[in-house]
Amino acid sequence: MSGNSIGFLFKVTTWGESHGPATGAVVEGCPPGINLTESDIQKWLNRRRPGRIAASSPRQEDDTVKILSGTFQGKTTGTPISLFLENTNVDSSAYEDIKDIFRPGHGDFTYFRKYGIRDYRGGGRASGRETAARVAAGAVAEQLLSCYGMEVFAYTTALGGIVIDRKKYRVGTISRQNVAEDHLLCPDADAARAMEEKLEQVRRSGDSLGGIVEIVVRGCPPGLGEPVFDKMDADLAKALMSIGTVKGVEIGAGFKVSEMTGSQANDPMTLDGFLSNHAGGVLAGITTGQDIVLRVAIKPIPSIAKDQQTIDVQGNHVTLSIKGRHDVSAIPRIIPVCEAMVTIVLADHLLRQKAI
Amino acid sequence: MSGNSIGFLFKVTTWGESHGPATGAVVEGCPPGINLTESDIQKWLNRRRPGRIAASSPRQEDDTVKILSGTFQGKTTGTPISLFLENTNVDSSAYEDIKDIFRPGHGDFTYFRKYGIRDYRGGGRASGRETAARVAAGAVAEQLLSCYGMEVFAYTTALGGIVIDRKKYRVGTISRQNVAEDHLLCPDADAARAMEEKLEQVRRSGDSLGGIVEIVVRGCPPGLGEPVFDKMDADLAKALMSIGTVKGVEIGAGFKVSEMTGSQANDPMTLDGFLSNHAGGVLAGITTGQDIVLRVAIKPIPSIAKDQQTIDVQGNHVTLSIKGRHDVSAIPRIIPVCEAMVTIVLADHLLRQKAI
Amino acid sequence: MSGNSIGFLFKVTTWGESHGPATGAVVEGCPPGINLTESDIQKWLNRRRPGRIAASSPRQEDDTVKILSGTFQGKTTGTPISLFLENTNVDSSAYEDIKDIFRPGHGDFTYFRKYGIRDYRGGGRASGRETAARVAAGAVAEQLLSCYGMEVFAYTTALGGIVIDRKKYRVGTISRQNVAEDHLLCPDADAARAMEEKLEQVRRSGDSLGGIVEIVVRGCPPGLGEPVFDKMDADLAKALMSIGTVKGVEIGAGFKVSEMTGSQANDPMTLDGFLSNHAGGVLAGITTGQDIVLRVAIKPIPSIAKDQQTIDVQGNHVTLSIKGRHDVSAIPRIIPVCEAMVTIVLADHLLRQKAI
Amino acid sequence: MSGNSIGFLFKVTTWGESHGPATGAVVEGCPPGINLTESDIQKWLNRRRPGRIAASSPRQEDDTVKILSGTFQGKTTGTPISLFLENTNVDSSAYEDIKDIFRPGHGDFTYFRKYGIRDYRGGGRASGRETAARVAAGAVAEQLLSCYGMEVFAYTTALGGIVIDRKKYRVGTISRQNVAEDHLLCPDADAARAMEEKLEQVRRSGDSLGGIVEIVVRGCPPGLGEPVFDKMDADLAKALMSIGTVKGVEIGAGFKVSEMTGSQANDPMTLDGFLSNHAGGVLAGITTGQDIVLRVAIKPIPSIAKDQQTIDVQGNHVTLSIKGRHDVSAIPRIIPVCEAMVTIVLADHLLRQKAI
Repeated sequence: MSGNSIGFLFKVTTWGESHGPATGAVVEGCPPGINLTESDIQKWLNRRRPGRIAASSPRQEDDTVKILSGTFQGKTTGTPISLFLENTNVDSSAYEDIKDIFRPGHGDFTYFRKYGIRDYRGGGRASGRETAARVAAGAVAEQLLSCYGMEVFAYTTALGGIVIDRKKYRVGTISRQNVAEDHLLCPDADAARAMEEKLEQVRRSGDSLGGIVEIVVRGCPPGLGEPVFDKMDADLAKALMSIGTVKGVEIGAGFKVSEMTGSQANDPMTLDGFLSNHAGGVLAGITTGQDIVLRVAIKPIPSIAKDQQTIDVQGNHVTLSIKGRHDVSAIPRIIPVCEAMVTIVLADHLLRQKAI
Repeated sequence: MSGNSIGFLFKVTTWGESHGPATGAVVEGCPPGINLTESDIQKWLNRRRPGRIAASSPRQEDDTVKILSGTFQGKTTGTPISLFLENTNVDSSAYEDIKDIFRPGHGDFTYFRKYGIRDYRGGGRASGRETAARVAAGAVAEQLLSCYGMEVFAYTTALGGIVIDRKKYRVGTISRQNVAEDHLLCPDADAARAMEEKLEQVRRSGDSLGGIVEIVVRGCPPGLGEPVFDKMDADLAKALMSIGTVKGVEIGAGFKVSEMTGSQANDPMTLDGFLSNHAGGVLAGITTGQDIVLRVAIKPIPSIAKDQQTIDVQGNHVTLSIKGRHDVSAIPRIIPVCEAMVTIVLADHLLRQKAI
Repeated sequence: MSGNSIGFLFKVTTWGESHGPATGAVVEGCPPGINLTESDIQKWLNRRRPGRIAASSPRQEDDTVKILSGTFQGKTTGTPISLFLENTNVDSSAYEDIKDIFRPGHGDFTYFRKYGIRDYRGGGRASGRETAARVAAGAVAEQLLSCYGMEVFAYTTALGGIVIDRKKYRVGTISRQNVAEDHLLCPDADAARAMEEKLEQVRRSGDSLGGIVEIVVRGCPPGLGEPVFDKMDADLAKALMSIGTVKGVEIGAGFKVSEMTGSQANDPMTLDGFLSNHAGGVLAGITTGQDIVLRVAIKPIPSIAKDQQTIDVQGNHVTLSIKGRHDVSAIPRIIPVCEAMVTIVLADHLLRQKAI
Repeated sequence: MSGNSIGFLFKVTTWGESHGPATGAVVEGCPPGINLTESDIQKWLNRRRPGRIAASSPRQEDDTVKILSGTFQGKTTGTPISLFLENTNVDSSAYEDIKDIFRPGHGDFTYFRKYGIRDYRGGGRASGRETAARVAAGAVAEQLLSCYGMEVFAYTTALGGIVIDRKKYRVGTISRQNVAEDHLLCPDADAARAMEEKLEQVRRSGDSLGGIVEIVVRGCPPGLGEPVFDKMDADLAKALMSIGTVKGVEIGAGFKVSEMTGSQANDPMTLDGFLSNHAGGVLAGITTGQDIVLRVAIKPIPSIAKDQQTIDVQGNHVTLSIKGRHDVSAIPRIIPVCEAMVTIVLADHLLRQKAI
């Protein structure tokens, strides 16, 4: 399994399975002299913690990060930063019952077909657990970006078909601060209330919900991104689509451009800046200096209590009902993961631009 | 400018500007013994040619490909395949008038901010011209995939807000053959007629149109794709988003998952296969063996005759009307480019799986 | 600091400083189903341990490896293998005295000029400590190669100017077994005795010694190695030169080819194989199927008790005598490191060839 | 065949076979605004031309370079630079006689075993012809380095066992200018005369000669090179060993360190700089600011008129005498190739350091 690294100059490699002894990340390429302590990372990991709200699973993941290398006296040294997360509260026994069964919507079947091996303990590398390492690595990128006045934040714009009021809550009006208070990191309090009700109702029915997350990058200078294949938006699309629950990515006006004319879609330029941002902050793969605005489609958590039709390794038909308590929606826990992926890509392109 | 290569084992590097003497691609990693002649490539390039229909610009690009290396007696040798496309009918004089002006919706401004240089001749690397090299490289990948019984094809599902009838024209019912006859590569003849009318009307108003393209991969074996960051869908999203006109990518149910429950979105498994394909052929980043189904949002061509507000290099406000005849929509010419990008990613992951 | 990874498909990333809490390696790309336990790795680490002989430093490095991911039920799963080595017996206080001084022959000055930071604790990433992670990763590669009947081993051919009798001890006559008994892993017992005497004498004088190590790969199939830049010998040269103490690398007849004619240097071919091996098992960058034979020049340990002239960070001249007990020669402890680097390169090219 | 690229930020990809229609290189990552015209490149290619002296083959390679992309108005634009070299005077008929025969010392056998294909026309990718593309790419790197006051040059120190007088001709005393006059690019006129006599004598006997080339980098700032695997010396060793005729690489004191003590090998430091340069300008993989000094062992040209014992594809024993006129030694034509490889590595690490 190659494919465990992302980034070219700012490079993140994650390792670890859901139910092994630990997971972690190695972060390479972070310049020397950046402030970095364990608590700088811990605060981002805490945002990913389960159990805060109805939508989340009750598995207690401590997610206490240790920095094993790459810092000295509270600053980065330029050497690789090894981040270590012990897997506590690991109980594989819950998986004994389903060790031969391919869970629908999970990677069980595809991993088995790829590797010829069934590591049934909690999803292995495909588990949401792997995203803890991404968040930890993203926190390092965040320390770097903040030196350049850049900020990445994300929030819920839709859940289970309930959408925020986009006339009231436009990109420019939303900040990290005014979503932080809400359990679902949703800027629209009315929508948020409806979303929580729907979550509770779906939980009771043994089902789960999908939604949409919007990610905004503020303070990004123009000129970042490599034309042709490593376009800023291409690298962002890959980074976000590499999150297991993401089924779609769009930038700026996104799929709406399919209904627009050129005179509507083009953003007019003035000496005071662009008059609109349908491009989403990226033109021809390079940042314009406007906010970068992305949206991702989050699929419903595939582990549900409702009966599902599937098969097992031995070739039998099986009816599966997944017991235990799982998240009802990947939202809001996926939000810091989305932020981390975008942050890592930006850190990478920031360094790439320095080498021009 | 790094970022001119895509792929890990099957690697494509493109070079060349719109108005330089030539453009081309170097294709590395193609296994030896694959049939490959210039006419195998030419037929794909011909599909990208302008001038077939109302939507297209009349610039006559001959796009005659030459293979400069990597084949012997009609077969690949395993060495890099150099593909060469002379730029004929290049007339930079048309760009003299706008050489100091940043065209809205183009990369003029962002390239200038990135490199500090204004190569004004026809968009340079950001020009659609660069995609000819992609199509040529994709044709090599296609020769490889066809040895494994895999086929990639794409078609128009929406243009200027006119959408095909998805109840009639579902993924499973559409083939390369039954869209080939239509100018717009649209499977729904009624919709196609309405699209062409709209194109003509928008052309007369000096404007342009966006749309949606759907790409299908047929015959893909299960097990392709690397988990975590180099997921099949992540690499496909990057490859497609690296096309200049693409503003969104989705796989399977795509953004619709945001309104679905887990019991709706999960694809039940039986011994005869999956009962639905909301996943779009990829689970946890690895192919399931079902059709891979992707959709991309295509923005309207930004070069329009209508007056636009913009600025120039010297810091003046300018009203711009782009003369000359440009495409009204990137559809259908972008379709072989979408196919090429998907084909290249699949060829790459096919080889990666061999190394497991 | 990028540059912490080596290998393309079989990829090793190391992290950790000499005096941090731990060091480790992440091994990616190892195919699934390979036998791998901690004791498979531990036996290679034990060979690198100090204190066995006069040449070695008395720092007790336990070097007990833990596998944190990538295996299940004693076999690899195809996912990244995280190897963890706690740094025990770490005492940075010994470095307090020299924390501002640039030690001759060390990376102190160059790291400072590169990063603008002086992490004085024991050499940081440039420390020999980092090689423990290489040996651990090499052990994983060894498990893979042994499935294909390949073996890599190395031994001392010269130390402090004392050279083994090459008429008696030719490549074909030496095996891992018949050097294993000797403290210096030297095949020539007479030479070994003289080497040990010289080591003891040099130790008393507060100085150190260089030497030559020969590495042999047995059982390598023909056809491994990529032509042009990633030639087998080019990748081996890089891997070996990346060891801090190596100042030269040669293959086959090596520098002797400068005195040979073509008729002497060419290896005649017969249906029973080659009649000589001046090529060292590699022609045009690709393995011939003969033994691969490499030699590396090992510089004397730069930490010596003798007075040395140098400068400090503040810009003063300093006379430095390095106290504490250091190795007198990198030989024999560097030998498993040389083996590891060669093993990693071979594992990588073995997988690359599978993808053809 | 992957492995056609070298460099990370300054990246060179070569393509083309000896007897195909053309060869070339794509140079990526060169910053914008660097002066670059075809004549800047041509002057380096001319140095590689055959026919100047007795040592060289009479094949007339015009080696006229064309720049197909990446420059505008005489300066680089930051986009990929495509360099094109038509293969003129290509006559494959000379190879018809040996199309089934594996020439000793050549890649014929190993390519056949790797790819299962025999492209017999003049060595294909393994031909010295491929090095023309390297020299062209090196010329681009040279334009970049010269902006930073860096210079790379190489010369002959030994040929056929005749060695220059190292007491008279030490590294510090030799410049590009004072070797330029000599046919063999040898700084020692007496040795050069003896070398030419030996070349003539060996030519008459139908044989060939090896030698040693020394490469010096002047003006390199301290701090270039990445520690651990991408050490400056490791990357240089790979780049040089990737030249088909090179069988050994050493830096600074090189293999002599095996006979030195630490007090001899360490370079003492003063406020005025280092007192010696046994390190060869690199400590712990990072440049010190001193001259970088490398030596490579060049094997004799394997194509000789003398009878050689070999086999053919059909499994017969064959006695081979290679007709036609070939170079007697790769020296001096290999010298600009050595320079090019070193120049490319330095350009790459220069850019890497900018991204710190």
